[in-house]
Amino acid sequence: MTDYIAPLDDIRFALSTFAGLDEIATLPGYGQATADLAEAVLEEAAKLAAGVLAPLNVIGDRQPSVLENGVVRTPPGFAEAYRQYAEGGWNGLPFAEEIGGQGLPLALSTAVLEMWNSANLSFALCPLLNIGAVELLEAHGSPEQKALYIPKMVSGAWTGTMNLTEPQAGSDLGAIRTRAIREGDCYRITGQKIFITYGEHDFTPNIIHLVLARLPDGPAGSKGLSLFVVPKFLVNPDGSLGERNDLRCVSLEHKLGIHASPTCVMSYGDNGGAIGFLVGQENRGIECMFTMMNSARLNVGLEGVAIAERAYQQARDFARDRVQGRPATGGASILYHPDVRRMLLHMRSLTEAARALAYFAAGTLDRARHHESSAERQRQQRLADLLTPMVKAWCTDAAVEVASLGVQVHGGMGFIEETGAAQHYRDARITPIYEGTNGIQALDLLGRKLLRDEGAAARELLGAMRANLAAIENQSDDLQVMRVHLTEGIAKIEETIAWLLDRAKSDLPQALAGATPFLELFGTVACGWLLARGAASTDDQSRVLTARFFAEQVVPAASALGPAIKGGATVMGFDPDRF
Amino acid sequence: MTDYIAPLDDIRFALSTFAGLDEIATLPGYGQATADLAEAVLEEAAKLAAGVLAPLNVIGDRQPSVLENGVVRTPPGFAEAYRQYAEGGWNGLPFAEEIGGQGLPLALSTAVLEMWNSANLSFALCPLLNIGAVELLEAHGSPEQKALYIPKMVSGAWTGTMNLTEPQAGSDLGAIRTRAIREGDCYRITGQKIFITYGEHDFTPNIIHLVLARLPDGPAGSKGLSLFVVPKFLVNPDGSLGERNDLRCVSLEHKLGIHASPTCVMSYGDNGGAIGFLVGQENRGIECMFTMMNSARLNVGLEGVAIAERAYQQARDFARDRVQGRPATGGASILYHPDVRRMLLHMRSLTEAARALAYFAAGTLDRARHHESSAERQRQQRLADLLTPMVKAWCTDAAVEVASLGVQVHGGMGFIEETGAAQHYRDARITPIYEGTNGIQALDLLGRKLLRDEGAAARELLGAMRANLAAIENQSDDLQVMRVHLTEGIAKIEETIAWLLDRAKSDLPQALAGATPFLELFGTVACGWLLARGAASTDDQSRVLTARFFAEQVVPAASALGPAIKGGATVMGFDPDRF
Repeated sequence: MTDYIAPLDDIRFALSTFAGLDEIATLPGYGQATADLAEAVLEEAAKLAAGVLAPLNVIGDRQPSVLENGVVRTPPGFAEAYRQYAEGGWNGLPFAEEIGGQGLPLALSTAVLEMWNSANLSFALCPLLNIGAVELLEAHGSPEQKALYIPKMVSGAWTGTMNLTEPQAGSDLGAIRTRAIREGDCYRITGQKIFITYGEHDFTPNIIHLVLARLPDGPAGSKGLSLFVVPKFLVNPDGSLGERNDLRCVSLEHKLGIHASPTCVMSYGDNGGAIGFLVGQENRGIECMFTMMNSARLNVGLEGVAIAERAYQQARDFARDRVQGRPATGGASILYHPDVRRMLLHMRSLTEAARALAYFAAGTLDRARHHESSAERQRQQRLADLLTPMVKAWCTDAAVEVASLGVQVHGGMGFIEETGAAQHYRDARITPIYEGTNGIQALDLLGRKLLRDEGAAARELLGAMRANLAAIENQSDDLQVMRVHLTEGIAKIEETIAWLLDRAKSDLPQALAGATPFLELFGTVACGWLLARGAASTDDQSRVLTARFFAEQVVPAASALGPAIKGGATVMGFDPDRF
Repeated sequence: MTDYIAPLDDIRFALSTFAGLDEIATLPGYGQATADLAEAVLEEAAKLAAGVLAPLNVIGDRQPSVLENGVVRTPPGFAEAYRQYAEGGWNGLPFAEEIGGQGLPLALSTAVLEMWNSANLSFALCPLLNIGAVELLEAHGSPEQKALYIPKMVSGAWTGTMNLTEPQAGSDLGAIRTRAIREGDCYRITGQKIFITYGEHDFTPNIIHLVLARLPDGPAGSKGLSLFVVPKFLVNPDGSLGERNDLRCVSLEHKLGIHASPTCVMSYGDNGGAIGFLVGQENRGIECMFTMMNSARLNVGLEGVAIAERAYQQARDFARDRVQGRPATGGASILYHPDVRRMLLHMRSLTEAARALAYFAAGTLDRARHHESSAERQRQQRLADLLTPMVKAWCTDAAVEVASLGVQVHGGMGFIEETGAAQHYRDARITPIYEGTNGIQALDLLGRKLLRDEGAAARELLGAMRANLAAIENQSDDLQVMRVHLTEGIAKIEETIAWLLDRAKSDLPQALAGATPFLELFGTVACGWLLARGAASTDDQSRVLTARFFAEQVVPAASALGPAIKGGATVMGFDPDRF
């Protein structure tokens, strides 16, 4: 397999063009994010990613985390890498200054997270889950809870986990059965949780579990869930570790990919009940979860960007070295075969498109949080809400496609595990599933983001896209081609929005059956628009041609999804007993 | 994981509607293929597939073939299953009566092979490679060679392998270095071959290797290759086994999937040279290979059909059982969620489409071989030649997509190996690669099948498609929808053919860069046409809606590939140093 080198040029371009980092750095509270600081952060992160984390990626694949006598041993080198990472202060990077973080724009921490994810997705999952846990505690924890846990979770001295899923409760959290019984100031937690990423590990002496559970007198369904902080070791008021809590990892899953990341079955309360502390109010746990959902979904979308980048680099390096036949265009390696070049450009364009969308969304969230105008903050938040399911689903679907193309570029060698391409194909496959399956993202886009405001936020974005495209009319042949295909795409989005809004009133299931192709259409056109914006802002012909490739090869097929989006009658008309 | 049950209704429908088995059974030489016999063959094959081969599929995944002291041990149960398979007379099924086979139509043996492949792809690879070896010997071997090897390879007493690939010679066979030196009546073979499927195993006492090698005085490139039969044990004139030949398996590959199939590195001549016997003429080895290429490629396309079917059954059974949330449409399981139903119908429609194309091609080859009219045989052969790369590439791309959707239907459980969906995702990934990568299939379609006759064969098929579609005009709303989308698709094929023929004259690499999307367009519309033909012939509404789903959800995106097909200037304009 080949090395990973952080694509700093592409990242800088995405930060400046799609996130608008220069402008974000002028927003209140982001004054410290100077261009010099940003550059230093990117360069240092690139070193850690390439030098420390990336070489461990294949080791983790071949020597998965193992559970021995209740203790999880992560792959060789991982615990030491985590120590370096935490000591370097990287764990605090995504957090606000008030809680010990670096107070950097989300856009910039997005760029850093991309590098961790590219270098070693399994490793990066630990900090990723920790971000969600900190956000929850910061938003809903008591002052005592914040003081006790957050500083150590920000520094990386401890890690946080999210405990939601149970065997019968995956996408449907309302089916959660884990119980919580009041006992004085705290609660006794009993139940089994599955798919708990880094639920147990050897990185840090303590692990702070956030657990959704049900009170005996809570309402049925998701409105009867409460959120608890359940530390592996109880924490004394002075911050020192106290008693071992009644929870344990009982097994690890044998997974298709991300082998190094321990996916734990966690058992709470085998000996009378784990001690948990209520976060926020009773029966409001599900609302607490929504706090972290946006950033968690954006971060999983970013994983898609990252895996795509890694798979692309792997395939490109192979294609550069591999000699096979005499290419029609002269050069020596298979990179000069037209079909191989097409595959690589396809991989590259999907990767750049995914990065553009993810960074654009990150910049939008930065503005939603820090813009001086409250109207603008609201507008940006509407946009971020609209973009979030697209980033999660579109970028992760793209990652699977890019990783699969990456295998293909290698020919027979791609199927041999030693080569390294297959790991990306296996690892990438989790990203359309977790943090809300992509089907759920599509329903979120359609139900919460489109039907609820009757398409207002979507039309706002489409209007901006139209205005941008009008501005590049006749600037160059390349831009003109992009404009034509994208204008067609926007028209198709508008047309299908009208249809969906209408059909949802008369036959909701039929409208819902179109959610996934609708997200694909919208996400693809949004990506194409961003790439065209990027192309209009640069003289770099490789960037322009990548954007043009996307407009020619990807956008038209998405624009043709109208019949699929409107095909709900066929889908729902099919007799389920005939499957 | 779930059981496999042969989809006999779908197979019967495909045989009768797409292959035209009833008509084929009337062709000279196929008289024995009565409807009763065909039905008996299908039902017995279904039993062996479901009862014996399918349960071993997961065992083979978890306990791969291993090499110990030069001996390959296949997974538990495989050798016994092979014995049952051979003793049942199944190995001879695809062969002509003259050589001890059953003389059945290719269409019927295609149906049986589909079942083996669905049940256990790794197992089925052994007979599949044997078919190619028998075809080669039958076409090019001397009478003595035929007498010595073919009966045992037809009965399954011995198996055959194909030894083409070397580390530097994958898609480019001209780079083969394995050497052959004349020595009396035979040759001494020396060299290393890789990716040799079932190059060593414990099924049979002898293995007959067909090896491409280069004579010292042969021309450079692929025109200097000769084909040799190199048995593991030399065979005495009476058919008994003689001396062990100088060849051995030196290692097995660790692969992404098809773990049970031993993928061997074979070393020839470590002790002076393996004894090989020339097949056909010196330096004509590559021409011999073309003999088996059509059927091998069709058979790998069929593997795509088979894996898609297996992945579909797995996902359908999971969706039927899994309860999660309250579906918008009433029912209890996730099958009633519109987006899950869409995914399953997508899987189903791709699977039926792939089967339709593969069986149609098989029927075409039957006619090309057995039709009484020589003009018709030639016409059918032109059609088969045109269809072959489409079957190989389209059906295997579909398999990867279906297997990936299958994982997605399972949600988080899909990523857990225990569930079984992930195996199909891993196994499927080899099919777009071997037997000529799908990129090479696309070049074959464009170069050999389109440019060479200036689109004549393609136009012949398109004319038939147009005539069929005209005949279903206004028959029903469902058929009308199909007709509209497919007519549009045909127009796009015609338009892009004209462009490709023209561009190939002025700038061949630009035309070649469009080969893959062209194959996708042509293959998709051909599949949609077959499904529409099927829908017009039945009252089964589930078949009609599956065809309509395909026309709405898959065909339009393919029809929009025009800009991709014509986008070669963008692809070739991208500076290769900027990847």
